[in-house]
Amino acid sequence: MTQISTLGEFGLIKRLTKDIELKNPETKKGVGDDCAVLSYDGEKEVLVTTDLLMEGVHFDLTYMPLKHLGYKSAIVNFSDVYAMGGTPKQITISLALGKRFSVEDMDEFYEGLRLACDEHGVDIVGGDTTSSMTGLAISITCIGECAKGQAIYRNGAKETDLICVSGDLGAAYMGLQLLEREKDVYYGQVADAKAKGKEPTDFQPDFAGKEYLLERQMKPAARRDIIQALREAGIQPTAMMDISDGLSSELMHICSQSNVGCRIYEERIPLDYQTAVMAEELNMNVTTCALNGGEDYELLFTVPIADHEKVSNMKDVKLIGHITKPELGLALITRDGNEFELKAQGWNPLKDE
Amino acid sequence: MTQISTLGEFGLIKRLTKDIELKNPETKKGVGDDCAVLSYDGEKEVLVTTDLLMEGVHFDLTYMPLKHLGYKSAIVNFSDVYAMGGTPKQITISLALGKRFSVEDMDEFYEGLRLACDEHGVDIVGGDTTSSMTGLAISITCIGECAKGQAIYRNGAKETDLICVSGDLGAAYMGLQLLEREKDVYYGQVADAKAKGKEPTDFQPDFAGKEYLLERQMKPAARRDIIQALREAGIQPTAMMDISDGLSSELMHICSQSNVGCRIYEERIPLDYQTAVMAEELNMNVTTCALNGGEDYELLFTVPIADHEKVSNMKDVKLIGHITKPELGLALITRDGNEFELKAQGWNPLKDE
Repeated sequence: MTQISTLGEFGLIKRLTKDIELKNPETKKGVGDDCAVLSYDGEKEVLVTTDLLMEGVHFDLTYMPLKHLGYKSAIVNFSDVYAMGGTPKQITISLALGKRFSVEDMDEFYEGLRLACDEHGVDIVGGDTTSSMTGLAISITCIGECAKGQAIYRNGAKETDLICVSGDLGAAYMGLQLLEREKDVYYGQVADAKAKGKEPTDFQPDFAGKEYLLERQMKPAARRDIIQALREAGIQPTAMMDISDGLSSELMHICSQSNVGCRIYEERIPLDYQTAVMAEELNMNVTTCALNGGEDYELLFTVPIADHEKVSNMKDVKLIGHITKPELGLALITRDGNEFELKAQGWNPLKDE
Repeated sequence: MTQISTLGEFGLIKRLTKDIELKNPETKKGVGDDCAVLSYDGEKEVLVTTDLLMEGVHFDLTYMPLKHLGYKSAIVNFSDVYAMGGTPKQITISLALGKRFSVEDMDEFYEGLRLACDEHGVDIVGGDTTSSMTGLAISITCIGECAKGQAIYRNGAKETDLICVSGDLGAAYMGLQLLEREKDVYYGQVADAKAKGKEPTDFQPDFAGKEYLLERQMKPAARRDIIQALREAGIQPTAMMDISDGLSSELMHICSQSNVGCRIYEERIPLDYQTAVMAEELNMNVTTCALNGGEDYELLFTVPIADHEKVSNMKDVKLIGHITKPELGLALITRDGNEFELKAQGWNPLKDE
């Protein structure tokens, strides 16, 4: 018997899907990118992506209000569609509910879900609602579209292409650390009060000056604006994906699928001031947080070097490096000029702790 | 705080989705049928359906081998696409795994999944694999297609239409009862042996003469053959759905969405011999089992009375009654000529026990 943790998530998926042959001519792209791509007759292609979120693994209801959870569950799927250069159009939403959830809880969840859908012009078209022996399970499938032949895959990066990132990185991960810290403080106070035979006093978590980190963790954005800006600038990225597991992990996907190497520069990795302050407080290396912290849902993409000027003029996009020959591997050039090999330590839910 | 059980599954879905407005012209049909229907330019429409299956609620791994579970998980989704008159084309499959599952377990699950996909010409195009704090959660989304304007909804049944059912009913439910009985016998023997300080002897469940019931529960069929036969016979059903929760429950959906009543005849409900024998053994009313037992995945459909001869000649299809004015309600005419009102006692996972 082989433990799943020995393969990890990507290893297991590879094993299970390695010899899947596509039977339908309409199936243009199956497993292995942000979305599957289906091509029916007509001018459009259909994009499909799906996510399964489990309580205790992907979210903690102690600090995640259900409205935010509904919002985020939808956004992370929209992000996958944008990461193909597409537009999300419909979602289905399935919920499995433990006994402790009330109808009002579900109203709240749906409120967040619908807010996200309204902001992105997406229709809720179906789903499944059932019970669970334990916690909450959420499965969302998002369907989108793009013009025929215009889907942007992970496998198109070419030598000398420029590597770009939208927004800033590491803040969502720092937001999670902050929430975990305040949760520990709260439980500490409750235990303290109990030991002294007292009622715990009202707990006020300390989030002052860290509002941006919280928002990045609790209410992430899907970067439709970047996709629109790329279109307006006339830039067609050669490869693209969204950063959900961490920059290192996503760069590895693009490089391995495109059969190229890369060289990125530490000093160019976009960071927010609050991310840096929080990393300092927690005695963590902020670059490591930006490379390996997940859930930023920013876009990582490559463009031909000829688009250098166009992409340099884009708001909220930073050039962080360039694509190289595959034999040069994945290199990080630090501020002091040293070179390190990038390793994916991105979030892996099937890894042993 | 309102308990979800006070609303039940359908009540909760109704509350959460009642004022959802569809924003995209491509979204032809949202929540409320076997599939959502999306219309892109071109000659085809896209059908989407999704299911979330939770261990301990929808399946019991004590007697359900993972290969069968993989097979059945796919089939129940194909069945929803056939129930719209469509052809399933692609699926995505998401799994959340507890620690006790091995890589070989997942191989086995995928073996069943792929067998179902091969039989129905469906491509596996993506998904998500993650961990679970407890049992196994399975989420499948199936995408299918049908010719533009040819999707068969639940809301098209008209007065005087004939009501038809494929195959036979109640056998899957009897199969489940059989499995539960043998499981109880097994646990009884184990407890007995333990009480006597002995090792339990090898257990041989007694399934003799009940093979059909087991197959209906463990390896159900999705009735593509009926859809093909309907096409060949030139019959376009006015309403259709698959029987997953029980005949009564599905008839209520068709009648309420079509704003009609119905009249079905007990003597016409198709039953297999093994179903009748098993009901007898368990001292259950076989008609009740056929009306309320779920998971048969047969097709329930209505056709104009003008198609009477065509549909009568179809293999493995039975006429069980006809559609009436809405004010006549849902009536069951028993063998002795009495009339009863049909009540949906179908399987409801959100109901209090």
